[in-house]
Amino acid sequence: MVDMLPKLFFVHFQKTSFVAERDAELVGFLVGFLSPAEQDVAYVHFVGVSPAERGNGLGRELYERFFELARAGGRTRVSCVTSPLNTGSVAFHTAIGFEASPPQAGYDGPGEDRVVLNRNI
Amino acid sequence: MVDMLPKLFFVHFQKTSFVAERDAELVGFLVGFLSPAEQDVAYVHFVGVSPAERGNGLGRELYERFFELARAGGRTRVSCVTSPLNTGSVAFHTAIGFEASPPQAGYDGPGEDRVVLNRNI
Repeated sequence: MVDMLPKLFFVHFQKTSFVAERDAELVGFLVGFLSPAEQDVAYVHFVGVSPAERGNGLGRELYERFFELARAGGRTRVSCVTSPLNTGSVAFHTAIGFEASPPQAGYDGPGEDRVVLNRNI
Repeated sequence: MVDMLPKLFFVHFQKTSFVAERDAELVGFLVGFLSPAEQDVAYVHFVGVSPAERGNGLGRELYERFFELARAGGRTRVSCVTSPLNTGSVAFHTAIGFEASPPQAGYDGPGEDRVVLNRNI
């Protein structure tokens, strides 16, 4: 996870990222940004929910907050990618309205296949 | 390098990133963006120059193009980080006018120390 989240994301994308806490403990977070190149798109780089908190709607709530913020920034689509091996992630995103592409071979480099997920907002 | 450069950087930050080619071969690139959170800052995430091309000013030229673009975007400072073990990178950045911080322990996670580099433009 450290590889995917160098500090730059927290420094530079803090206005479009947030954390969820319960009893002052971190239980979830979402890191995203408004795409500078694709003016209709907001991109979610990473979402995490503590195992003990899964299944109670926290992931959905993190996304809903991000959708609001993306709409406020003039965006009409939210995009993200996940590994095709992460079937829990694909199922979660599909359940909250994302459309999943077929796996894209080598999307993030050799051996790094990805499912591309898109949802209109 | 694949870990540091998921495709999202090339999709979403393409307007502030560029490549250098010689005889239709890639010999260098710079990936950066205008910080959404720090409105005076442009951030350089990754710069690479082919070993055969080092020492001939290509790295400096990539940065100078980025400085122009950052100024055009209203930015007054360019920021990046590197590993303190990468003495070549620290020396290069210092030579082109960056000020290097002391190594920041665990900046990018456990064991991932970084030197923070800043240059006014």
